[in-house]
Amino acid sequence: MARFTTPADIPSTVEKYVITGTFIDAPTPKALRVRENCEIVVDARSGRIEAIRDADVGAVGNRKSDAEKEKAGAENIVRVDMGATQVVCPGLIDCHVHAPQFRQLGTKTDVPLVEWLEKYTFPEEAAFTSITHAERIYTALVRRLLRNGTTTALYFGSNHLPATRVLADTCARSGQRAFVGKTCSDQFLPDNYVETTGASLKDTESFITYCREKWPSEAGLVKPVVTPRFVPTCSAELLDGLGKLAAKYNCHVQTHASESVDEVAWVAELYQNEKRDIKILQRFGLLTDKTVLAHCCHLYDEEVGEVVRVGAAVTSCPYSNILFARATVPIPHFKSLGLKIGMGSDIAGGMSSSLWTNMRLATLQDRIDSFSPRGGDKPAGKENWVVDYKYAFHVATVGGAEALGIGKEVGLFEVGMRWDALLVDYGLEDMAFENLRDDGVSVVNVRDGFERFVNCGDDRNIVGVWVDGKMVCERK
Amino acid sequence: MARFTTPADIPSTVEKYVITGTFIDAPTPKALRVRENCEIVVDARSGRIEAIRDADVGAVGNRKSDAEKEKAGAENIVRVDMGATQVVCPGLIDCHVHAPQFRQLGTKTDVPLVEWLEKYTFPEEAAFTSITHAERIYTALVRRLLRNGTTTALYFGSNHLPATRVLADTCARSGQRAFVGKTCSDQFLPDNYVETTGASLKDTESFITYCREKWPSEAGLVKPVVTPRFVPTCSAELLDGLGKLAAKYNCHVQTHASESVDEVAWVAELYQNEKRDIKILQRFGLLTDKTVLAHCCHLYDEEVGEVVRVGAAVTSCPYSNILFARATVPIPHFKSLGLKIGMGSDIAGGMSSSLWTNMRLATLQDRIDSFSPRGGDKPAGKENWVVDYKYAFHVATVGGAEALGIGKEVGLFEVGMRWDALLVDYGLEDMAFENLRDDGVSVVNVRDGFERFVNCGDDRNIVGVWVDGKMVCERK
Ligand SMILES: [Zn+2]
Ligand SMILES: [Zn+2]
Repeated sequence: MARFTTPADIPSTVEKYVITGTFIDAPTPKALRVRENCEIVVDARSGRIEAIRDADVGAVGNRKSDAEKEKAGAENIVRVDMGATQVVCPGLIDCHVHAPQFRQLGTKTDVPLVEWLEKYTFPEEAAFTSITHAERIYTALVRRLLRNGTTTALYFGSNHLPATRVLADTCARSGQRAFVGKTCSDQFLPDNYVETTGASLKDTESFITYCREKWPSEAGLVKPVVTPRFVPTCSAELLDGLGKLAAKYNCHVQTHASESVDEVAWVAELYQNEKRDIKILQRFGLLTDKTVLAHCCHLYDEEVGEVVRVGAAVTSCPYSNILFARATVPIPHFKSLGLKIGMGSDIAGGMSSSLWTNMRLATLQDRIDSFSPRGGDKPAGKENWVVDYKYAFHVATVGGAEALGIGKEVGLFEVGMRWDALLVDYGLEDMAFENLRDDGVSVVNVRDGFERFVNCGDDRNIVGVWVDGKMVCERK
Repeated sequence: MARFTTPADIPSTVEKYVITGTFIDAPTPKALRVRENCEIVVDARSGRIEAIRDADVGAVGNRKSDAEKEKAGAENIVRVDMGATQVVCPGLIDCHVHAPQFRQLGTKTDVPLVEWLEKYTFPEEAAFTSITHAERIYTALVRRLLRNGTTTALYFGSNHLPATRVLADTCARSGQRAFVGKTCSDQFLPDNYVETTGASLKDTESFITYCREKWPSEAGLVKPVVTPRFVPTCSAELLDGLGKLAAKYNCHVQTHASESVDEVAWVAELYQNEKRDIKILQRFGLLTDKTVLAHCCHLYDEEVGEVVRVGAAVTSCPYSNILFARATVPIPHFKSLGLKIGMGSDIAGGMSSSLWTNMRLATLQDRIDSFSPRGGDKPAGKENWVVDYKYAFHVATVGGAEALGIGKEVGLFEVGMRWDALLVDYGLEDMAFENLRDDGVSVVNVRDGFERFVNCGDDRNIVGVWVDGKMVCERK
């Protein structure tokens, strides 16, 4: 059985990583950038990429003799020479995770969305009054996401301030880059889970200051997020207060919008004037250039235009959208309108904690859009055969970074950017797919190998995970 | 790294398995049958279930003292006492696999079906002129499918007789129950892969007699299948000859039918009278009660009625259908018309070798049918929220057995049926999903654990695989 190290096991004395081999990232949705025989130098202390160069050039200037290498080791420089079937790619960015729903992942999948919330999900979240429970579940969740290659996550916590502090602490301790929100809901929730408007606002402000004090700089791993659950479960007073907090602290905002036919109808009934999520969020100051909207299957093109104008972003959650919202997000169409789109697992509405699974479903979603009208109220987007593994990988890396406003920091490999990266081995035996060999030689080239990994691989193929220049998870 | 045993490692002297714990099968699509605290006795020699009884009753009559157990060991009786998070369920039946496409699984996914065939797939299959190549790829494929829990497979081989013999031999040697066909195509194929009509018929007959001689009895593990690739690549003369061979040898038949809009149009152009696959196959004697038709996304209800009347069956390949055919199979609707439906991975048109993945996509497919018209030419089936993990598991076990005419032999656990079964551990650490524990106790009950395994698990959770009463793959 593979053993995983955690940050606690890994010496924090490393000053530099010098990594040599093949690096793959996706600057555009159309093509991968494959840098073979390349050397990247990472400053582990600042977390940033110091140099990217041809490995042979590096060799002339820097490559050391064996004796020098040993000395380098003593100087806390770690060399990583990739194997023949290894590549390094950017870490994944999951823009929609309900942390307190992790335990129910893959179960209780037998009912529609609203019934699912009431029957299973609200009771599950209500259990996070217990700090012990929160510590247990959140530790397992963050470990699982890191193993999957998710180096950044945007989390909904539960309604509870203490448990959400635990979530933020767990991410920081585990070394995961995280955007965390205390979820807010003051109506239409079970009695044992609903908040008062005042407490919801007070706890949100308290959570923001907790995070800002603990991780004060721009470089801090964890950032607070103003998080109204969705329009129906928040009173107008709560939405108004949350909008003011977002402005006061210049905070990220996240919520759900235009998810399912049911939800859209419910919102229209509650707000006879605005009728639509986008207008309502705008009225309360919750649609900003730091807002990330989950789902958005049913946005009108005019609404997409407004979201683009403001600079807000959308998270596509392919698994959850098909399963629970029973709709799709026409990613290529929305992107053609200028929209920033990231990808989300939507644990536990999506039945996988893996963004790789969701990438595959993003590809299928694009095919579905080629033969179906979107969610029943829109004509089919005809941009099919557009989304493939390269496109989906771009959305799950660069797309997520842009959605969260950290596109200049992570998602790609450029000098000066932060080192959030995965060491992938697409050739390991006993994996979810076979690396067929003839006389010990891999028969797949690096592009086919990476394509097969994205399409068929799993966490077993991810043998190392760096966040912010530190190795946070390593398969031994 | 886990080690897998193969039949060669496992002593063939075992006479009986006495297995105690929780057994789960799905006699109907609506509900699982969960037998807890149950004991099943398997006669390893005949491959059949000898007894199913309450473990306590078994204990009174049969449970032995430790000394007696040791003696039982000497008598070649192997006792399997399941752990707290283990269950045993029927093996999966994959009703559509293109064996010579295994190496391209998960790659070359960037083009539509016909282009995909011409550019990638035909050249890949043409390589099976080499026996060495066939041995290498087929050994890896069968091992992979067994590890995934696929205990029975219906295979398309390549056009080549020698390579297809290798496939049959590999299945027998690996202990997998298999239905194998030499694929037939005498037109519209590249020059280096097309056959003559005469050779195609002669090789098919030769393959049938090869299998019938090698595995003569009804109980033989491997059975030959008459396999016209699909209507367009077979001349009328070839189809006619294959129909006669199917009748002469009372053989299974497999082919593709009504897969995609393109394919349907092509067939209509080639056969101005019949126009449709079903009528054409009927004309040539290829639609029998031993016929399995892959895909069938675009069948009319009247055609389904005809397939039902004849007693033929259909294979739903959810991944491949959405990805390449860009269509769905409305399983609940078709089943309501009386159709026998099994599930297929359609390696490599589907991008997963796992039927578990395809079960999840069968559930999504049902949701898609609730918001989309089927394949563009049929109204949406409204039977959504019908297919869930239980329904999909029924199709992948009982459905496949019925489709292949072995529903009285495998797919369920009943006294006298053959023992094709999986030992599943839904609680293993380091798996694709977490089994969260508090003080060492599993927090999931057996139904939730099995649901989570079907929805989120993978081959790591399958710790043992029996086919025909023999352990053929075991995770050590
Ligand atoms: Zn959500
Ligand atoms: Zn096929």
